[in-house]
Amino acid sequence: MYFGSDNQTGASEQVLKALVEANTGICASYGEDQWTAAAVKAVQTTFECDCEVFFVASGTAANCLALSSMVQPWEVIVCHSQAHILVDESTAPEFFTGGARLLSIADGESRITPEHFSALLATQSQHVPHNPLLGVLSLTQANEAGQVYSPEEVATLASLAHQRGMRVHMDGARFANALASLGCSAAELTWKAGVDVLCLGASKNGCLSAEMVIFFDKSLAQGFVHRRKRTGHLLSKGRLFGAQVVAWLKDLHWLTLAAQANKHAQVLASALQNTPGVRLAWKVEANEIFALLPSQLAEELEAAGAVFYDWGLSALPAGQRCGANQRFVRLVTSFATTDEDVQRFCDLLARG
Amino acid sequence: MYFGSDNQTGASEQVLKALVEANTGICASYGEDQWTAAAVKAVQTTFECDCEVFFVASGTAANCLALSSMVQPWEVIVCHSQAHILVDESTAPEFFTGGARLLSIADGESRITPEHFSALLATQSQHVPHNPLLGVLSLTQANEAGQVYSPEEVATLASLAHQRGMRVHMDGARFANALASLGCSAAELTWKAGVDVLCLGASKNGCLSAEMVIFFDKSLAQGFVHRRKRTGHLLSKGRLFGAQVVAWLKDLHWLTLAAQANKHAQVLASALQNTPGVRLAWKVEANEIFALLPSQLAEELEAAGAVFYDWGLSALPAGQRCGANQRFVRLVTSFATTDEDVQRFCDLLARG
Amino acid sequence: MYFGSDNQTGASEQVLKALVEANTGICASYGEDQWTAAAVKAVQTTFECDCEVFFVASGTAANCLALSSMVQPWEVIVCHSQAHILVDESTAPEFFTGGARLLSIADGESRITPEHFSALLATQSQHVPHNPLLGVLSLTQANEAGQVYSPEEVATLASLAHQRGMRVHMDGARFANALASLGCSAAELTWKAGVDVLCLGASKNGCLSAEMVIFFDKSLAQGFVHRRKRTGHLLSKGRLFGAQVVAWLKDLHWLTLAAQANKHAQVLASALQNTPGVRLAWKVEANEIFALLPSQLAEELEAAGAVFYDWGLSALPAGQRCGANQRFVRLVTSFATTDEDVQRFCDLLARG
Amino acid sequence: MYFGSDNQTGASEQVLKALVEANTGICASYGEDQWTAAAVKAVQTTFECDCEVFFVASGTAANCLALSSMVQPWEVIVCHSQAHILVDESTAPEFFTGGARLLSIADGESRITPEHFSALLATQSQHVPHNPLLGVLSLTQANEAGQVYSPEEVATLASLAHQRGMRVHMDGARFANALASLGCSAAELTWKAGVDVLCLGASKNGCLSAEMVIFFDKSLAQGFVHRRKRTGHLLSKGRLFGAQVVAWLKDLHWLTLAAQANKHAQVLASALQNTPGVRLAWKVEANEIFALLPSQLAEELEAAGAVFYDWGLSALPAGQRCGANQRFVRLVTSFATTDEDVQRFCDLLARG
Repeated sequence: MYFGSDNQTGASEQVLKALVEANTGICASYGEDQWTAAAVKAVQTTFECDCEVFFVASGTAANCLALSSMVQPWEVIVCHSQAHILVDESTAPEFFTGGARLLSIADGESRITPEHFSALLATQSQHVPHNPLLGVLSLTQANEAGQVYSPEEVATLASLAHQRGMRVHMDGARFANALASLGCSAAELTWKAGVDVLCLGASKNGCLSAEMVIFFDKSLAQGFVHRRKRTGHLLSKGRLFGAQVVAWLKDLHWLTLAAQANKHAQVLASALQNTPGVRLAWKVEANEIFALLPSQLAEELEAAGAVFYDWGLSALPAGQRCGANQRFVRLVTSFATTDEDVQRFCDLLARG
Repeated sequence: MYFGSDNQTGASEQVLKALVEANTGICASYGEDQWTAAAVKAVQTTFECDCEVFFVASGTAANCLALSSMVQPWEVIVCHSQAHILVDESTAPEFFTGGARLLSIADGESRITPEHFSALLATQSQHVPHNPLLGVLSLTQANEAGQVYSPEEVATLASLAHQRGMRVHMDGARFANALASLGCSAAELTWKAGVDVLCLGASKNGCLSAEMVIFFDKSLAQGFVHRRKRTGHLLSKGRLFGAQVVAWLKDLHWLTLAAQANKHAQVLASALQNTPGVRLAWKVEANEIFALLPSQLAEELEAAGAVFYDWGLSALPAGQRCGANQRFVRLVTSFATTDEDVQRFCDLLARG
Repeated sequence: MYFGSDNQTGASEQVLKALVEANTGICASYGEDQWTAAAVKAVQTTFECDCEVFFVASGTAANCLALSSMVQPWEVIVCHSQAHILVDESTAPEFFTGGARLLSIADGESRITPEHFSALLATQSQHVPHNPLLGVLSLTQANEAGQVYSPEEVATLASLAHQRGMRVHMDGARFANALASLGCSAAELTWKAGVDVLCLGASKNGCLSAEMVIFFDKSLAQGFVHRRKRTGHLLSKGRLFGAQVVAWLKDLHWLTLAAQANKHAQVLASALQNTPGVRLAWKVEANEIFALLPSQLAEELEAAGAVFYDWGLSALPAGQRCGANQRFVRLVTSFATTDEDVQRFCDLLARG
Repeated sequence: MYFGSDNQTGASEQVLKALVEANTGICASYGEDQWTAAAVKAVQTTFECDCEVFFVASGTAANCLALSSMVQPWEVIVCHSQAHILVDESTAPEFFTGGARLLSIADGESRITPEHFSALLATQSQHVPHNPLLGVLSLTQANEAGQVYSPEEVATLASLAHQRGMRVHMDGARFANALASLGCSAAELTWKAGVDVLCLGASKNGCLSAEMVIFFDKSLAQGFVHRRKRTGHLLSKGRLFGAQVVAWLKDLHWLTLAAQANKHAQVLASALQNTPGVRLAWKVEANEIFALLPSQLAEELEAAGAVFYDWGLSALPAGQRCGANQRFVRLVTSFATTDEDVQRFCDLLARG
């Protein structure tokens, strides 16, 4: 019963097969190969636009390379107080951007609302050159609370940002889960809603290692090839990313995988919600579940083989607290989560 | 009636005179001169210890060079939410430190208390290598609310920091005002209380341009000469700083100047407090006054020639707000503030 | 007839098979998995010592992360004038190290000799803090001319470096080829000869993407986990590197692959040397061949399907020049080079 | 007999007087004062154009802030092999630019010639993204050999640079000496000849501390206020620089001072040239003299009270060497050099 994280699996069968097939033959290195070209094309088709696409090996690299292309080092990046770029990427954003600053809002909330963001815009002093300037709004999709921003929400926030000359970044480590949840098109959830740059993650959803930086605003991509090279993120063998991404996007494989993870999350969420003493921190909309559990229950589940992690208390909803006999935990499903594991976990809960 | 800032004056007569006298003669450059040596000696005598002392031209340079010597780029610097290093130095801290992060606490309060700091230490996740590590505690003296930390307060906070392996930085842009207010010794307020590095400002209190980085923990000074050089902060003519600092410290001149500024601030604070409709944001303990004024009164004062600045609303005490007909302002006194200006301002208030 | 580069192949069969096998199952992420642990163990066994081992995806990342652990930003890294870190990694070394400087020597020579290095040490001004300080000596193995440093040569150079307080870095992108060429042990060619940190490349010799940073001086590894994370080089799925490296080192597979490449290079070198009008720039000792070819011959070879690249003229041996009807080219063999391709190329040369 | 450096004096009388006069009164801080405004105006008038002008405290700060505005971090700055930015500013250029690289040419020559520069442009590989790109040409005026570039020379080099999309920086720490030597206008020697950004030094020629960054290409100045602030180079009291610069430029004071230094250098150079066994390394054209002296003579001069410094042997003209009984030394004159000192030194030489 593995609900620890969606990055603890291997690749999907389809993706692995593609990788094996691409292993044969000689081709140009450093991304000049046919697999890379095909993958770029596949991304453009998926997003229905002529975007610039680059592949890197980690989500941190994708996010921080993207941000470094979008921000001056004397600007701030506004993000959620639990954003991965703030909480889980060491000081990589500062390193890549040459010292830009993260500014967090919406503490204790599941999402950045127009109200949060407008309040910040209204009060943030911009006395040149003493104060850092507003640079980028970064949204996470699916977000820090395991929920999704609708295209309309994204559009409203992006519009506020653009009105102030800011650019809009989307951390899409779990973008596929959001898209599968919302049912709209990839274009509607991104550039049509005002997203300038999307970091699209595949490593958590079917690939071994493949992350994409997708520039809808192509002017921001200027210099990216140099940035990627001088941060050590240009791999010599482009087929590694190219083959994975082509297979991942083919026949909506990425959405099939994500939908499966989301479905399992819903089942788990229902079961948890119906369990006395358990409280979901947030309504589950993608593949992550945040819940307060009686400690005893949590321990019994773990004793029975369930794997999930305690989560930082700073991520609790405003006003909620984790009592002495409670644990605040996160469960994550992935494409590799099995019906059996889910069923067994629900049975354990029902047995209480 | 100038209460805009304490950096809008020239040098004190005594300091200027020393500068003029030091202008004559040939001497070694880049800090190898006799004036620099004498200034180092004067600082050591003043602080009663064998500290390492370096001179630079700006407070931002002093603070950020100090911090870069105290922190790894994957660590955080904990500071007050209105700290100058956070609010008024652009992203200089990030630049100098190679991308370390500022983490602010005590929002809406006049000072960092052991409770604030302990709460942070208790909740700050330290999952290696995902989370930035705790690196430095930075205190401002006199602080962001125009108040002072007692030696005991400094010692308690420094002790908490050291227990967690953190180092303690003090931004002493107005250290002289704090010292004059407290009446203790410079040593008691710094190294005896656990401060590892003090940035001592003279530019706001009698010098044209002279800031000191004082390492009480001399091991942290390793490499400082290289840091200062490669940031462009080693001046060729050491006499500029050396002469000023010697004169500034001589015969307690620095404290005399600071005491004068503090005294004027007390007079202004009393008058404001006794004025109907005026509310002091914080008790005045040094040379800065933060107050909520009826807008009409503020405008009348300005019309009569008073100069003071509106202050960022984010600096308001927790729970207070600035009403539609109010203004949140800061008044600052300096050694150059005149009895006449203070008296005239008080008369205007009395006339109401 | 592919002699373009040794990074234009896929993985070896044995390595690919391991990758496929490791794809199954759930395991901890971010390098806490059993494949990573096994790979670290395999490296330690191979090098007969208790070294610190880290895996990253690119040679540039390996080199620059290693260098950033070895150098202060006010120091220089001494390297060959054709070193990959100087010529082919954009300004990655400067980026990772926070602005340390590369200083090149041995221009026009196949290798750094003790004479070159001693001359530099004797003349390099070290006036503190004006001059950058001597920090690291970086050697490439196999080197920039396709030759190898013997353990004795490495030891002499390393000893000179250590005497001056410098640390010794080895760029081993083709270390396996050097080792196969020399026939000594991995330990003898590295830590026993004074190498402090080795960057061991597998991507050019049988892996899809796997580079190792191996700290023989473990004190230099302090902070490396933070450096790797904040540069985006900690991958979530450790099995990617772990599985490859275990298979690559198993049963001397890495040396078998390298020896095969070297052998083919020798055959090509002989044939070229016996071809009228052709001149080898340097004696061939590993898997790279640098040669001056009559332009007509080069074009005939290309027309017949041979792939090789023109090389920068700045890499020519001192005193040699590339005439109007000549081309300066590099040929590289790899484990995937076939007997047939080599034979066909030799036949073409013989046919002249 | 002080010929050690031109930064070992105080300010000229006229400059000091202005500083004292400007000490009185309250004014806006951070460069918003009337002295700063007047100084900007004076520079614009002197250079006969509507340039952007910024003041900083050190030559290193001026050079490196300028360069950081002109170069991407994946580009190179081409400079002379003895350039101050390469040899004497630690790794400040790398720090300020976020890791751009210095590339030196014209080793052993007194100046960068169009031939040197063209040769570099012809051979420098620009394989994207592997090689750093050509970014800036930096010229020193007066140059590293104490000589001057004529407006025509500057124009030819600048034109070559601009044709390749490079920008042109001039390190004018001794620009006044060059201008006094050439007798042309400040405009002719800079923007009319294609210089994009000039760093104009006053600290070596009459000021205590005042350096200017002058953008003739104003588009490059975008963001400069942020760069200056976040490097700690925005001083609170603008009068310090403003008052000095106004006085320095007034009535051609700066050129009077420089001409005086140059004149004394000519006298010394003549005397040295006529002394048996002495060899001038380069024809003297400004206020620096580089010479090979018999060691015994050098010691006698020093014993008699002459101060000058041994110079790095790497600065010797190509083909010359410093024999066992020789010393390679530099003598510098300044506005403060006295007729008496020069006469005494010449007498000592004549006495031989």
